[in-house]
Amino acid sequence: MNIDGKPYRTIWLGADGASAEIIDQTKLPFALEIVPLKTLEDAAHAISSMQVRGAPLIGATAAYGVALGLRDDPSDAAVDRACEVLAATRPTAINLRWALDEMQKAIRNQPHEARAAAAFARAAEICDEDVETCRKIGEHGVGLIRAHAEKKKGERVNILTHCNAGWLATVDWGTALAPIYRAHDEGIPVHVWVDETRPRNQGASLTAFELKAHGVPHTIIADNTGGHLMQRKLVDLCIVGTDRTTANGDVANKIGTYLKALAAKDNGVQFFVALPHSTIDWSLDDGSIIPIEERDAIEVTEMTGRLPDARSRPWRSRQKGARRRIMPSTSRRRA
Amino acid sequence: MNIDGKPYRTIWLGADGASAEIIDQTKLPFALEIVPLKTLEDAAHAISSMQVRGAPLIGATAAYGVALGLRDDPSDAAVDRACEVLAATRPTAINLRWALDEMQKAIRNQPHEARAAAAFARAAEICDEDVETCRKIGEHGVGLIRAHAEKKKGERVNILTHCNAGWLATVDWGTALAPIYRAHDEGIPVHVWVDETRPRNQGASLTAFELKAHGVPHTIIADNTGGHLMQRKLVDLCIVGTDRTTANGDVANKIGTYLKALAAKDNGVQFFVALPHSTIDWSLDDGSIIPIEERDAIEVTEMTGRLPDARSRPWRSRQKGARRRIMPSTSRRRA
Repeated sequence: MNIDGKPYRTIWLGADGASAEIIDQTKLPFALEIVPLKTLEDAAHAISSMQVRGAPLIGATAAYGVALGLRDDPSDAAVDRACEVLAATRPTAINLRWALDEMQKAIRNQPHEARAAAAFARAAEICDEDVETCRKIGEHGVGLIRAHAEKKKGERVNILTHCNAGWLATVDWGTALAPIYRAHDEGIPVHVWVDETRPRNQGASLTAFELKAHGVPHTIIADNTGGHLMQRKLVDLCIVGTDRTTANGDVANKIGTYLKALAAKDNGVQFFVALPHSTIDWSLDDGSIIPIEERDAIEVTEMTGRLPDARSRPWRSRQKGARRRIMPSTSRRRA
Repeated sequence: MNIDGKPYRTIWLGADGASAEIIDQTKLPFALEIVPLKTLEDAAHAISSMQVRGAPLIGATAAYGVALGLRDDPSDAAVDRACEVLAATRPTAINLRWALDEMQKAIRNQPHEARAAAAFARAAEICDEDVETCRKIGEHGVGLIRAHAEKKKGERVNILTHCNAGWLATVDWGTALAPIYRAHDEGIPVHVWVDETRPRNQGASLTAFELKAHGVPHTIIADNTGGHLMQRKLVDLCIVGTDRTTANGDVANKIGTYLKALAAKDNGVQFFVALPHSTIDWSLDDGSIIPIEERDAIEVTEMTGRLPDARSRPWRSRQKGARRRIMPSTSRRRA
């Protein structure tokens, strides 16, 4: 998607062909900073410090991390070490582990001197595949929005979303936001109600940032507000992402999604979950057994943001806090 | 209720018998500051700057405001002026206007020299009546909690509440929290899930403060969390206050209350609204026609709190912000 008219992905190959670059999401929405990843450690740090987040983007970053780890030492031991370091960065297992498995497959049968190149090639492929998957979510989903636009005779379609399931959580397009970007790009008038999504405010800081950067009309609302808006007929449909979807179709997503689903049902508002096939966990029968990540209390008691006067320290170091906050957990929630 | 073992009300007669004193709620939870109200203007400022808030406490403060206005000038013109100034402080009409009407009745038939004393006496009565009303809410409500405690054989009863309908919103006891204080004082083990209640965070800053000060176990949660806790059987009952209740029993309360009610219904959790008779608006047939106060966007985009390092300016001036934020509105929502 675009930032002020210029197309971006969340991760891409560096100009030297042997590094990667990312948008440092801990600095958003206040600054757009590009960070080079030159070593395995850089990639691991980017994931664990939440410079990158969102299951698909974590997977893509881990893939580049393996490639970076092999530049100087392409031995089997180095491959194993890289995968071990990267697997330990976040408990959001599904895409991370999947990406590491893919990298292993792409590398193992190669002679040592070809491994780094093969790894960079596979990492780029993983990124392209993610973009194509998300683009197709947009293609499939845009009809839902178009139907509302036709019924409303060109009046803008109001869509509520929770947390960030946009392009910043993937390599491009996003999941929940892909149909919205598609609709906007096709000229369908849309307006997005963005739940601020306490405690970490990924809605207010990331979803709002990316919608604004691409030029999509939107309004940040307190999480408490969605039900009232639905009662007043100010929401046409809801689209959210999912951290994990079980075999029976149960969806686990960021805390609070359930409350909006209840309100949608109570008010006859359509509620959609947009997801790639990789988010379906066929090994679980229903949602009640999905482990839920419990994060640090500091995320509720403290707040990041820009201070009212001090330009020299315009916001708190989220990065430092984020490291402290990652709990040893068995969960695979996207954060 | 108690603050660190010492009993307090939210407003009381000053030691000189001709002023009032309040707890400055804009300083909570970081500092307990007592502010004397010596003039009509002090009282009006206390209401408009939200040093006091909550419909019953606003009414009590307005009553003392009238008394303060008559100390030097007990003429009919002065009475009218006092009521006019105080009526304009907040759009939360019901209790404010009721209190001003009560004061007029108590004063008008008195000779000028007796008016100030009559006004102070009636203001004190209004406070005592509010305390008695709230005490009775506790008396009526404690049985609901006791029933859970008996069923759980002494295990603690988990109660969820939204916003602040505690003693800080009234003169003492509170509405929603009155049964909880009563249960706690009777030795029934209770634990309160306190919604932080975005955007103004009255749950995190006021409800949590007063529960802690009185020694009631509690946990602040993000507003998104309540539904999940109910799904996991971690909520035994919900008790909330109400800003206005219509003739058919519809309840309007702080934004987000509806979402918790839906989750309670979906999970078979009891959901109670605790209110004094004065909150029932017999003139309205149902809740859909209750006007809803729309407040300033700054309450979502900005945040008050203690800064991480600067002791000299430990939190932002909420008072200044609050003045800016009061919208000309027809609503009577308690804030």
